[in-house]
Amino acid sequence: MGNIAASIITIGDELLIGQTIDTNSAWIAQRLNEHGIDVLRRVAVGDTRSAIETALDEELSKHNLVLITGGLGPTSDDITKPLLCDYFGGKLVIDERVLIHIKEIFSKRNRPMLDRNLKQSEVPDNCIVLFNKAGTAPGMWFEKDGKIIIAMPGVPFEMITIMEDEVLPRFKNIFKSDSLIHKTIFTAGEGESFIAEKLMDLEAQLPLNIKLAYLPDGSMVKLRLTGRGADEHILENQLVELQNKFADRLGTIVIALNDLPMAQILGNAFLENKKTFGIAESCTGGYIGHSITQVPGSSAYFMGSIVSYSNDLKESILGVSHDTIVNYGAVSKDTAIEMVKGALKVLNVDYALATTGVLGPDGGNEFLKIGTVWMAVADKNSIKTKEFKFHYDRQRNKFMAAQMGMLMLWKFINNK
Amino acid sequence: MGNIAASIITIGDELLIGQTIDTNSAWIAQRLNEHGIDVLRRVAVGDTRSAIETALDEELSKHNLVLITGGLGPTSDDITKPLLCDYFGGKLVIDERVLIHIKEIFSKRNRPMLDRNLKQSEVPDNCIVLFNKAGTAPGMWFEKDGKIIIAMPGVPFEMITIMEDEVLPRFKNIFKSDSLIHKTIFTAGEGESFIAEKLMDLEAQLPLNIKLAYLPDGSMVKLRLTGRGADEHILENQLVELQNKFADRLGTIVIALNDLPMAQILGNAFLENKKTFGIAESCTGGYIGHSITQVPGSSAYFMGSIVSYSNDLKESILGVSHDTIVNYGAVSKDTAIEMVKGALKVLNVDYALATTGVLGPDGGNEFLKIGTVWMAVADKNSIKTKEFKFHYDRQRNKFMAAQMGMLMLWKFINNK
Repeated sequence: MGNIAASIITIGDELLIGQTIDTNSAWIAQRLNEHGIDVLRRVAVGDTRSAIETALDEELSKHNLVLITGGLGPTSDDITKPLLCDYFGGKLVIDERVLIHIKEIFSKRNRPMLDRNLKQSEVPDNCIVLFNKAGTAPGMWFEKDGKIIIAMPGVPFEMITIMEDEVLPRFKNIFKSDSLIHKTIFTAGEGESFIAEKLMDLEAQLPLNIKLAYLPDGSMVKLRLTGRGADEHILENQLVELQNKFADRLGTIVIALNDLPMAQILGNAFLENKKTFGIAESCTGGYIGHSITQVPGSSAYFMGSIVSYSNDLKESILGVSHDTIVNYGAVSKDTAIEMVKGALKVLNVDYALATTGVLGPDGGNEFLKIGTVWMAVADKNSIKTKEFKFHYDRQRNKFMAAQMGMLMLWKFINNK
Repeated sequence: MGNIAASIITIGDELLIGQTIDTNSAWIAQRLNEHGIDVLRRVAVGDTRSAIETALDEELSKHNLVLITGGLGPTSDDITKPLLCDYFGGKLVIDERVLIHIKEIFSKRNRPMLDRNLKQSEVPDNCIVLFNKAGTAPGMWFEKDGKIIIAMPGVPFEMITIMEDEVLPRFKNIFKSDSLIHKTIFTAGEGESFIAEKLMDLEAQLPLNIKLAYLPDGSMVKLRLTGRGADEHILENQLVELQNKFADRLGTIVIALNDLPMAQILGNAFLENKKTFGIAESCTGGYIGHSITQVPGSSAYFMGSIVSYSNDLKESILGVSHDTIVNYGAVSKDTAIEMVKGALKVLNVDYALATTGVLGPDGGNEFLKIGTVWMAVADKNSIKTKEFKFHYDRQRNKFMAAQMGMLMLWKFINNK
């Protein structure tokens, strides 16, 4: 097969009324990219025959690889399987392996099996069946006029299982294309425009096979260099050289040269320095601990967190003095300092981070503006504090506070 | 304007390589729905002229309302504005109000203003400028051949601001269409197929203007009834009646008759019973506290959480006995019981929840399978425990554990 132009079709009314956020497309796009396959379009349509057929017609006319997710469940709002069967001129037949698998699932879960579950073992006789060990709906691989069409269930875990077990290994055999490599520069502290200005001349000199993109996220901006080339090794060197050149130019605002989440960048720093840390979270409510523990192996450096959401717990567990809260307020530099000192002691850690703030929509007053967050980081020898003002809604303020807290701790342990 | 058929185009290479998950489309779709406007398709394309033009041609040929997000930032990978200007045959002119606004933003932030920022005040002279008080890139409203095309920046917070301030109020004046109402039945404990079987006859009798969809999420399934009708009041009554009929049929697996997150359903129950609660989180790492505190006003019932990620903290803060951990393991019924007792006492709350488990990818062994989580809920008088086995990856196991923990507490306080 020559150049691969891929499109992703996601099916489901829940996508069009906004009840579900589509995470499948991003996951699929990432994996295809690693295999050197460009996704050129993504289309979402509802659970109606005509919408699905139109999308199939259009995407197949422009692309030679079309991946479809959704519409394969056991309930009657799922109409994709019979439609695909008709579209490619096949008829439905029982697949014995799938049938046995479905029976096993139900017997293991001690649930009665229904006709509609049995029906899930029916597949078009003109496709390769993509076995789904994570669920009851198999995937399907059709080929027509030199094009490949792959249909998978919309449940993310099942889609991922089928992609990894059945689809990607086949791609490896079929597709041999240009290499595609991405390099990221993770920055914090300056806006997109400022960065663009600093990089203007370097950007203008970029070779034609390399593209630069700016991805702002809160007060962090990720820069992504994307290169394409026949020789993976040469391309890798070319990109690494540019990545370093760009990072040198940006200086201290560069946090990392990869696309890891902030929690993992912080975790890696602790793995390296072999120290431990803990948190006293008030306004962030557990978000920082949650982010930190998304990373496998975080128990090596993260001991725990006191989510002292109420003022009583700030006093009883962290030892913040009642007078401090009364005199300076729960959202204050003084409270943050006593919280971080308490966390160091109670959690028995090398480093600690504390957050206390008011995120909205209620809780502000004329002296304390919504979005105000005091943070403190400390080790045995020193304490640093900082006041942040976030201007968004509750959820976004919380996200930003969690990100900035982790960044502040990262800077502290790196003496930045 | 007659029947509104809307399409959303999202622009950005980051969407096609999977670096960014598109949350804008879901948000826009929800809000359009509330205004009785159906989104029929969503298309994502990269930052290239031809891809954007093709998408515009296609979506405009099928829909009379097209919303575009992305591609309006100050950096050179953003090409949408000049393209739209050309596409609709206008020329770029300075908008004085936007110019003053951009200057204000930069002077407030004490940042030098660059030519590229000034350029953001340029707008096509054939559009209505949609003022963006949250950022520097204004939105644009074009009309052509009786169709409306709206372009907004891709940064979610800025898009939301423009939609709420500028777009939705205009829609209210222009569009007068059928009402569209959704009702949700939130269930837990049974699979999609089982529910479908129980509802089969009711589903077959649904009137033509009402659709039923199944939205499985972990071990919860949401059922969504969508109705369309000329008279909002009649439609509302029709849907409420059906919602109650379906819920009655499903019995005890029904948790709520709305589409709220589990954390809010739990929060509402505590607001009602005027009790407080707290958590001892081990494997969930703060996720439950984070979920609970996403809800505004949660400080009324949520006091805090001890994230005792290390075993030492289970002992030193929660008072779990060293012998219990040595003899039964940190992931055990006995540890969960001592954790929940400790949480009740240390957090001084009416109810407590405790989680301890091993989520993977490492940490399992022949006696302790990855995905095993013990949970306990308690008040002064009684304790309930339960062992869960999750079969997914670390992140999904954590999500499921958080959901099931909140559900378990909800059932406990409701005596279910």
